[in-house]
Amino acid sequence: MGVSDYTRRDFLKSITTATLAAMGLGTTLPVMASAAQGNQGSSYPILHRNDVVLFQGDSITDAGRNREDTHPNSQGGLGPGYAFLAAADLLAVEPGKSLKVFNRGISGNKVFQLAARWQEDCLALQPNILSILVGVNDFWHTLTHGYNGTVETYEKDFRALLDSTLETLPDVTLIIGEPYAMPEGRAVNDQWFPTFYKYQQAAHRIARDYKTAFIPYQSIYDEASKRAPQTYWTADGVHPTTAGCHLMAQAWLSTLHSIRS
Amino acid sequence: MGVSDYTRRDFLKSITTATLAAMGLGTTLPVMASAAQGNQGSSYPILHRNDVVLFQGDSITDAGRNREDTHPNSQGGLGPGYAFLAAADLLAVEPGKSLKVFNRGISGNKVFQLAARWQEDCLALQPNILSILVGVNDFWHTLTHGYNGTVETYEKDFRALLDSTLETLPDVTLIIGEPYAMPEGRAVNDQWFPTFYKYQQAAHRIARDYKTAFIPYQSIYDEASKRAPQTYWTADGVHPTTAGCHLMAQAWLSTLHSIRS
Repeated sequence: MGVSDYTRRDFLKSITTATLAAMGLGTTLPVMASAAQGNQGSSYPILHRNDVVLFQGDSITDAGRNREDTHPNSQGGLGPGYAFLAAADLLAVEPGKSLKVFNRGISGNKVFQLAARWQEDCLALQPNILSILVGVNDFWHTLTHGYNGTVETYEKDFRALLDSTLETLPDVTLIIGEPYAMPEGRAVNDQWFPTFYKYQQAAHRIARDYKTAFIPYQSIYDEASKRAPQTYWTADGVHPTTAGCHLMAQAWLSTLHSIRS
Repeated sequence: MGVSDYTRRDFLKSITTATLAAMGLGTTLPVMASAAQGNQGSSYPILHRNDVVLFQGDSITDAGRNREDTHPNSQGGLGPGYAFLAAADLLAVEPGKSLKVFNRGISGNKVFQLAARWQEDCLALQPNILSILVGVNDFWHTLTHGYNGTVETYEKDFRALLDSTLETLPDVTLIIGEPYAMPEGRAVNDQWFPTFYKYQQAAHRIARDYKTAFIPYQSIYDEASKRAPQTYWTADGVHPTTAGCHLMAQAWLSTLHSIRS
């Protein structure tokens, strides 16, 4: 059984109806969360006033952002990718919460490269919500950059990163995104499989063991690819198109919506 | 009576319920348009396969896009602004339509500067949907850049631009955005009013006379400013924040949704 089957079976049943609607229709979202859910009927009950939301990861998160612009909530600093789309929705839906949303994704990063800049680019920002999408380069660069890390390296480094994060920020809410790859993309070929599935399984194990939210991006892209070719959502099989960014942002928002404190 | 009152009275009653919900809740939108609306139950019945959507305007539309990237639908070419947010939603909601979405806004532009590049940056792209937001610089630059155009110049130039557009593209669907300014923004002062209202009235007259869709951005910002300070939506009173971009994109999408062929 590939992780793709595994992911679909285990996660699609746990994913919210809102996500499925978003996946099917491309649009949001719980417009009105019940007041009974607490936090004054917020669409995002986990978010509180002055909370800091941090997007971390590789090029998919980076999205060509202006790295000189380190301010929260700024268009240039968020960059034209899924983090900006998700941030724009959050900030407009929760105008009373004075949220600060940062993007600190850096193109090409593997887990050990996140770790090397974690103090400055994560801990110092004191995020309340920390979203991490990393893993595709941990595999991809073994094919293209002579990187000799393995899936064991990935999993060990990722667990160490979370351990040190939780030591400093014990109350942080974690969201882990599943690394994904679409085989029809020009950067993805048969060499990727089945090895790449092991990275997805590792991310999944980590999310389970650390009891974090998990976004099954592979299933989300698989589902979307029933509505348009894979390359409509990601031209090279890894980096999202504009439509793919929307898909990811909606899944991210729906996941955040479903988190209860 | 200021145009602000006028705009609110005349347009808020014509604006769709979905827009008001979007304004109030910051989120979308007609998730499912009735199949009876034609075009196979599309959320955007006016959009057809292979349609070209063009965003035109000044810095608000430009949003720091990469002007070297002239491809449709590309994140860099759309830039991190309301056009990207609207495009992402459109492209994800309508994956079967092979839409091409362009942004050709240029910072600082007044109407005569749009006209000077109209052949290349509009007509040659053969848009089916043409969205134009222009006017703030036509006024603002009279205060800051020694520009000596008047509201009569603005209206005359704008009408001439639409006349030449309709000559080449008689079937184009036009969306005109209302120029807006928020008085608490750092770039806006008492000198702006009441003169600036006349530019809003002119844009409104043009939309009425040419029977185009019209987005009452001033009212939309006014309404949003009941939920958070004006500067939460536009820091300088003119350029949207990330939250303001979302507000504008949702209003734009809702307007497009409401257009019937």
